Amino acid sequence: MPEMTWMEVRDAVNAGCGVILPIGATEQHGPHMPLCTDALLAGRMALDVAKETNMIVAPTVSYGFRSRPCTGGGQTFPGTTSLSGSTLTAIIMDVVKEFIRTGFRKIVLFNWHFENSNFIYDAAYNVFDDRKKDYPDLKLLIIESPFSELKPETMDYVFEGHFPGWGIEHASIFETSVMMYVAPELVDFSKAKDDQAEYYPFYDMLPIPTRISTESGILWKASLATKEKGEMVWKEISQNLIESVNMEFTRWEKEN
Amino acid sequence: MPEMTWMEVRDAVNAGCGVILPIGATEQHGPHMPLCTDALLAGRMALDVAKETNMIVAPTVSYGFRSRPCTGGGQTFPGTTSLSGSTLTAIIMDVVKEFIRTGFRKIVLFNWHFENSNFIYDAAYNVFDDRKKDYPDLKLLIIESPFSELKPETMDYVFEGHFPGWGIEHASIFETSVMMYVAPELVDFSKAKDDQAEYYPFYDMLPIPTRISTESGILWKASLATKEKGEMVWKEISQNLIESVNMEFTRWEKEN
Amino acid sequence: MPEMTWMEVRDAVNAGCGVILPIGATEQHGPHMPLCTDALLAGRMALDVAKETNMIVAPTVSYGFRSRPCTGGGQTFPGTTSLSGSTLTAIIMDVVKEFIRTGFRKIVLFNWHFENSNFIYDAAYNVFDDRKKDYPDLKLLIIESPFSELKPETMDYVFEGHFPGWGIEHASIFETSVMMYVAPELVDFSKAKDDQAEYYPFYDMLPIPTRISTESGILWKASLATKEKGEMVWKEISQNLIESVNMEFTRWEKEN
Amino acid sequence: MPEMTWMEVRDAVNAGCGVILPIGATEQHGPHMPLCTDALLAGRMALDVAKETNMIVAPTVSYGFRSRPCTGGGQTFPGTTSLSGSTLTAIIMDVVKEFIRTGFRKIVLFNWHFENSNFIYDAAYNVFDDRKKDYPDLKLLIIESPFSELKPETMDYVFEGHFPGWGIEHASIFETSVMMYVAPELVDFSKAKDDQAEYYPFYDMLPIPTRISTESGILWKASLATKEKGEMVWKEISQNLIESVNMEFTRWEKEN
Amino acid sequence: MPEMTWMEVRDAVNAGCGVILPIGATEQHGPHMPLCTDALLAGRMALDVAKETNMIVAPTVSYGFRSRPCTGGGQTFPGTTSLSGSTLTAIIMDVVKEFIRTGFRKIVLFNWHFENSNFIYDAAYNVFDDRKKDYPDLKLLIIESPFSELKPETMDYVFEGHFPGWGIEHASIFETSVMMYVAPELVDFSKAKDDQAEYYPFYDMLPIPTRISTESGILWKASLATKEKGEMVWKEISQNLIESVNMEFTRWEKEN
Amino acid sequence: MPEMTWMEVRDAVNAGCGVILPIGATEQHGPHMPLCTDALLAGRMALDVAKETNMIVAPTVSYGFRSRPCTGGGQTFPGTTSLSGSTLTAIIMDVVKEFIRTGFRKIVLFNWHFENSNFIYDAAYNVFDDRKKDYPDLKLLIIESPFSELKPETMDYVFEGHFPGWGIEHASIFETSVMMYVAPELVDFSKAKDDQAEYYPFYDMLPIPTRISTESGILWKASLATKEKGEMVWKEISQNLIESVNMEFTRWEKEN
Repeated sequence: MPEMTWMEVRDAVNAGCGVILPIGATEQHGPHMPLCTDALLAGRMALDVAKETNMIVAPTVSYGFRSRPCTGGGQTFPGTTSLSGSTLTAIIMDVVKEFIRTGFRKIVLFNWHFENSNFIYDAAYNVFDDRKKDYPDLKLLIIESPFSELKPETMDYVFEGHFPGWGIEHASIFETSVMMYVAPELVDFSKAKDDQAEYYPFYDMLPIPTRISTESGILWKASLATKEKGEMVWKEISQNLIESVNMEFTRWEKEN
Repeated sequence: MPEMTWMEVRDAVNAGCGVILPIGATEQHGPHMPLCTDALLAGRMALDVAKETNMIVAPTVSYGFRSRPCTGGGQTFPGTTSLSGSTLTAIIMDVVKEFIRTGFRKIVLFNWHFENSNFIYDAAYNVFDDRKKDYPDLKLLIIESPFSELKPETMDYVFEGHFPGWGIEHASIFETSVMMYVAPELVDFSKAKDDQAEYYPFYDMLPIPTRISTESGILWKASLATKEKGEMVWKEISQNLIESVNMEFTRWEKEN
Repeated sequence: MPEMTWMEVRDAVNAGCGVILPIGATEQHGPHMPLCTDALLAGRMALDVAKETNMIVAPTVSYGFRSRPCTGGGQTFPGTTSLSGSTLTAIIMDVVKEFIRTGFRKIVLFNWHFENSNFIYDAAYNVFDDRKKDYPDLKLLIIESPFSELKPETMDYVFEGHFPGWGIEHASIFETSVMMYVAPELVDFSKAKDDQAEYYPFYDMLPIPTRISTESGILWKASLATKEKGEMVWKEISQNLIESVNMEFTRWEKEN
Repeated sequence: MPEMTWMEVRDAVNAGCGVILPIGATEQHGPHMPLCTDALLAGRMALDVAKETNMIVAPTVSYGFRSRPCTGGGQTFPGTTSLSGSTLTAIIMDVVKEFIRTGFRKIVLFNWHFENSNFIYDAAYNVFDDRKKDYPDLKLLIIESPFSELKPETMDYVFEGHFPGWGIEHASIFETSVMMYVAPELVDFSKAKDDQAEYYPFYDMLPIPTRISTESGILWKASLATKEKGEMVWKEISQNLIESVNMEFTRWEKEN
Repeated sequence: MPEMTWMEVRDAVNAGCGVILPIGATEQHGPHMPLCTDALLAGRMALDVAKETNMIVAPTVSYGFRSRPCTGGGQTFPGTTSLSGSTLTAIIMDVVKEFIRTGFRKIVLFNWHFENSNFIYDAAYNVFDDRKKDYPDLKLLIIESPFSELKPETMDYVFEGHFPGWGIEHASIFETSVMMYVAPELVDFSKAKDDQAEYYPFYDMLPIPTRISTESGILWKASLATKEKGEMVWKEISQNLIESVNMEFTRWEKEN
Repeated sequence: MPEMTWMEVRDAVNAGCGVILPIGATEQHGPHMPLCTDALLAGRMALDVAKETNMIVAPTVSYGFRSRPCTGGGQTFPGTTSLSGSTLTAIIMDVVKEFIRTGFRKIVLFNWHFENSNFIYDAAYNVFDDRKKDYPDLKLLIIESPFSELKPETMDYVFEGHFPGWGIEHASIFETSVMMYVAPELVDFSKAKDDQAEYYPFYDMLPIPTRISTESGILWKASLATKEKGEMVWKEISQNLIESVNMEFTRWEKEN
């Protein structure tokens, strides 16, 4: 959509096209991956999904909610540039309202940054609640966590039998593999070392103790990443998403 | 704390006492449990933890963020009475600021409603960031999800080998068991049936389709709940929390 | 309502039942009464009124607006835990919107903390203005100050001929009496002394000078409180409220 | 202050001068008085007080919080033009911050519109709390209700033995008298009739029933107003205020 | 409108009358002009326009957005008393909503303070977007910069062949001339000197360097002001505005 | 910066590097240019400037304030996707606070969308005012309108003697030329026609009348654009900016 003219958008809307809003972050991803990792992956995946689902992709929301120690290293890293929750909610509310004004009725909010959860839903709920009466055919699909439904055999292959949890899997096997597949020019694998905090508690603390984060910003074993793993999960996730998006919008249409 | 006089609070603060803020919700919990389930459990657990950690317990935040279909049935149930995210954040920010004014330096935010996640952290981060310079000894412990660290054998015993995920475990085996142990007078077990949505997607949809929620508001097998299971998990969780709270505040003190 | 299931609430709504939201505070009430005094009294009175007016009672809003020196001792007491005005307004707006979603059309906002005034009305007005078109039968009754209409003979009996004004009557004759009647287990009458500021100005000052508040937090003669006075005013107030609520909702129904 | 140059303001500040912010409303005042009544009286009284207290007067806040039925006729009258509470709070916060930046350390918030209460205190408290550390000599005097302390003999003379309460005394004896003294050119006494609602409840209702307001907007006996009464109360109020302002700021200075 | 009764406003509305909201500022205008210059000129011009366009004039918004160095000298001058952008937007939103409630359908927002631009439009757009469905005949005219369309010969006469740009023309030839014509009693021409910053960049800086503002607050040649110039531009501007307002509302009526 | 790792950002900060935040919009730019035009140009220019000024470039703010008829065609075009003013302000405030946390002390806010003006300054002022005490060496340069200082001979060459004003110059000679130079692959010059509204008033209207905008979204003569013109203005603007940024930060350093 950013590279389309307004007339092309108008024609797409008239042809029943929907829109995907990718939502990322500007957050440390270790010494081997760039700050834009989440924003880039959200945008790329949105493009892959859009092609198969009659959707266009809006400009990525490049800044996200604050990084947390056990899922992103935390707000102590230089470079990590985050929004407060209310700002993130406000952006998504405004943008979704504009999608509706433009004429879109099928809207997908697609997130790649764990910490954005709930703020996106809050925004979607607020707008939907306000507009549903005027737009009875309005439908929103909110995907806050797309990579939580991989096949057991994929999980085994990727994590080599030892999955530490999605939060801790930050800048580690999964994300590094995916970046090696999607944007290898932005990965310096020579710096992809393994790292681990003293422990990963089920709670948070402020001030953030150094013992629950790592020095490198990698929270697990980046060295186990490969391009092949990246390709495998990328394809499985995109396939899952394409099927879900197509199924839901089709079902909704049948129901109405 | 609600039943203390201001002088008793003052003396507790002077004696180095900390404070726990329980955060719950007013949300449907099936035909067999009351709307206050989350608020009540948050408050009771906070009391159990406080006794062993030199803490007092502030009045519970009784309203929480919006219920979501796959973790609470969703905002379509009558009786569920929720706040927007920004309101929840504002309450916690104001209350934490007042704790600091009163003199507390050890503050625990203790949550029992899954959907409150991130709003609590946002509030805690905002206040901490604003006040840390003036109160260098201020420490916050944020527990958004206390029941995610049970021993494998407990999990096996409670869920009888089939754990559906914490979200779906709403008003089902775990919560019903705990309520049968903590507040049996509020549980009508004769209405505790098993239920299940057509499917539980990894995403959300607005409008909420009936096929991803249930008619009863129970999302799983409430019939498998027992008081014994409740007692076991309650004790394990409270023990976990007591140890964590004590360990963290002791560690922090040693470090400073 | 907190102890009801969602199905019971649904049935109550379908039967034409209304809802009362009690609004209190967490505020110093002298050395003899607990911080929850306002919250507790708001909730109890709401229950007494609800029974006679076909209403159910929602969970109490336990935190209120900032305490002021000449009506509550002011924000200098430890333990007093207050919200800013905008947060209080936001809570009430969100909760009232949810009442409407649940199906309630008769809503009573019932306050027991003087300083909450106007914020409650602001919230009620905002929601009503926004929703009135969609819910033409929606009615709100806003009771910000329930105890201002006692019979002259009651006033004489309670205050023994010397009424200092409702603001100053904080944690003193009236409130202590009422608590001795409603929740005697939370009153330590042996600490209920008389106190008085140097003077009670008709204005406020910041910083709060010690001379316009008291050391104890009692602003007047707590020693004159008795359980009998408490019973008398409690019954008169609840009677007044029951009549008013019934009369207004009946009148409205006739008019529509 | 509006008619001063910035250099004159700077010199006044350097000479230890304080500032008064008059806060009024744009609200119906019956068929005989203009919408600006509250704003005009706030500004005029501020000028009278300023002259005797080494203060200057800032531009009046001309819009106030929503009119309520039993104190101003309510938000159903055309011409009444009100702000929400959060907007009123925001204005006062911003303006007080600017007073502080300009160098003022003695600030008086002077209100003439009953419904503005608490929002003004909220604003003052917020700013004071935020700035007190950087400006230890900052002092705020908040006068939300200046006319509540008249001598008994004045009350008797003005209300002729029957005082209905300050709220109901809207656009009636007191205010009409004062306007006849202060701005007779804006009063059309020939239209100053007596009026009365069916009753004045101690609570509020939405939608506003016509029976608790009046057709004219006068809530009581405007016909009993005289210029002499106006002069008497005006002088007594201004004298009270001058003494209070002088006394408080002098005391504060002695204490510091 | 401030000097009208509510009945007069009601009758005006019923007769099809519109309303103008003047928006000014409290901002330094050199050593020779008062802080209220922008507020006063906005109000006076609104009155002149209203007389010829079947409009009435609401109370002026006396405080505006922050002064900027190259258009008003900047926020370093004592006496300049400004609002944040969100507060200004909130005021205008609330007031316009009340105009609509009162019954006005032709609303003019008339600004005289350069820095208020965009906040006014934001407010107008927000309200319009929210209310347009319910009030299909609602029309808003937003005049953020009224003096930018003078005839070339007027420009030549006033600026004597050297126009420095409207921003820099603060408290200088144009504004001083206009004030000499409209409110000569508030101008001390003996202090109207010429002044100039070291340079006027096309960007802004914080902290504000003294080199891009002036010591006096005059940004250009105040000495060249004359009452005759003031009269000429005042009449041309008011004539322009009258024609525009009449033309637009007439056109809209024809189109609908 | 988006393509840098956090360690590279940390090292840059330690080496005294500053940061540029490009601020754009998602807005119609005629039938021949994409919606991302403003965002893309803001980002590209920021890169050109950064290279010569020891700066790095943060991720572009891709959404901006609402498009206005006479400067962007207005909010009636499909595809234009805008934020409210308060959201835009919130984003910039949050991001600038994070720059400061990361360690940047030289911050440039660089805007390419006319309608963003004042919201950016508001955000910058708010943060600066709040943080200046803690970061005495913090400096912000705010460039809301970079293209307003071209040499007369450039203006003559580009506009061929007839400059219509920067607002109207939307998607026309200037912007089309620049895009042909910077991103020719996104321009379809065959659709670059000339267009013109019936007239361009100095005020705004809501609802937006079609007569003050154009059908194509081009507001002037796009056909006169050439790549050579684009190159000339791009180089002149970037040169201006490089000199200004270098000069100001050097001056500030000398002064401190």
